[in-house]
Amino acid sequence: MTATDREMISRLPLFGALTEEYRHKLLATAILREVEAGDILFGQGNPPEYLHVLLKGAVELRGADRLGNEAIVEVVQPPDCFILAAVVTNAPLLMGARALEASRLLLIPADHLRQELHAEPALALALLGAMASHYRGMVRQIKDLKLRTSVERLGSFLVQLAREQQSSGQIQLPYPKRVLADRMGITPEHLSRAFARLRERGVHMRGSRVVIDDVETLAAYCRVDTVLDSVERELRVPGTGV
Amino acid sequence: MTATDREMISRLPLFGALTEEYRHKLLATAILREVEAGDILFGQGNPPEYLHVLLKGAVELRGADRLGNEAIVEVVQPPDCFILAAVVTNAPLLMGARALEASRLLLIPADHLRQELHAEPALALALLGAMASHYRGMVRQIKDLKLRTSVERLGSFLVQLAREQQSSGQIQLPYPKRVLADRMGITPEHLSRAFARLRERGVHMRGSRVVIDDVETLAAYCRVDTVLDSVERELRVPGTGV
Repeated sequence: MTATDREMISRLPLFGALTEEYRHKLLATAILREVEAGDILFGQGNPPEYLHVLLKGAVELRGADRLGNEAIVEVVQPPDCFILAAVVTNAPLLMGARALEASRLLLIPADHLRQELHAEPALALALLGAMASHYRGMVRQIKDLKLRTSVERLGSFLVQLAREQQSSGQIQLPYPKRVLADRMGITPEHLSRAFARLRERGVHMRGSRVVIDDVETLAAYCRVDTVLDSVERELRVPGTGV
Repeated sequence: MTATDREMISRLPLFGALTEEYRHKLLATAILREVEAGDILFGQGNPPEYLHVLLKGAVELRGADRLGNEAIVEVVQPPDCFILAAVVTNAPLLMGARALEASRLLLIPADHLRQELHAEPALALALLGAMASHYRGMVRQIKDLKLRTSVERLGSFLVQLAREQQSSGQIQLPYPKRVLADRMGITPEHLSRAFARLRERGVHMRGSRVVIDDVETLAAYCRVDTVLDSVERELRVPGTGV
């Protein structure tokens, strides 16, 4: 494990809430895995073998129906962990995972993690914080899907990117437009039309970059709420961690 | 607290995983609350004051945007708890709650629950199981919203009801059609059209009851998957509970 890996791991609320000594013990059985863009990490319906921690790259979590139609449920950005719910309860995976770009992952054996849950109360609290954060991400997405049109959904995604990248309106799309459309539950053609509609709201495409004339005007149009729409990477059970 | 309340509480995986002695201690500060249909339990954006446990009735969890447009994110059926993620992390509520019918609730003070989390490792594991189950419910809903048309979504909801009610095709809608439409993220008019479309798939309305000619044919049409679409009320961290 490199110094950068270690730095990434300590930035995860999940591990930041544990002592360095215990973290070392927990990760003793973990495996580092490097994958290429397009590589399948696991398929849905299987039992979870590892808690996946994304250190570098990007991974799409995909849901499929019985006929093989697929949709992106979520795109994971580092540092974050995924399939935590399936791992702690040993339930079949509801989603498959595929690398969107060359990625670096830390795999923690699921049975080892479940054993440690019983042995180390601080770990259970750390996982509870991570799970709460993932749950709330899903609630936000459902509100987004039910309350916003696809044009507003795209606009509010761009507003959040602009705020995260603190770039005063010049933003870089984190993944290809095909993925963005799929994550939003619409077709690529529909996404192009949504971008066209946002032009009159001061949103301009420049290749994979987007220029927003006025972020706050766009935020008001999409009804973005500072508290309720913001990403919560630091959510924790109070009284735990550093 | 009545004997029925106690029976309901013990059926919750959340409490079933705790000893009766500890459960008694945990619930010593809890408050019983009876509400009427339409009563607001709390609004979104506020700090969570109580973990809510629904013992009887039905509650809708509603998300609103800045202009006051609202959508139902989830309908809670007893016995289940809600706003667990906000309570354990003391984060602002992402949803408000309203009783759909006369309901009976147990309110556990949030600060008491968080204190107990640190004192009693079994409680953290029990909450972890409950949170995993709620998270997976949201993932299923997102897959449903992104992969199915509204007609298929309605059909698959009816299939699940038929299976839960074990009624060989004669089912009772658990809440009014307005609520059903709102939960599905469509208008009541759109819902009526979806019911009309399902008539050719052998689905017939009889007031608030629905008759399905052949549940398995409908399930195949809606691509319902036995493992991935089923409701998991009993999800737990292995090794906990009775």
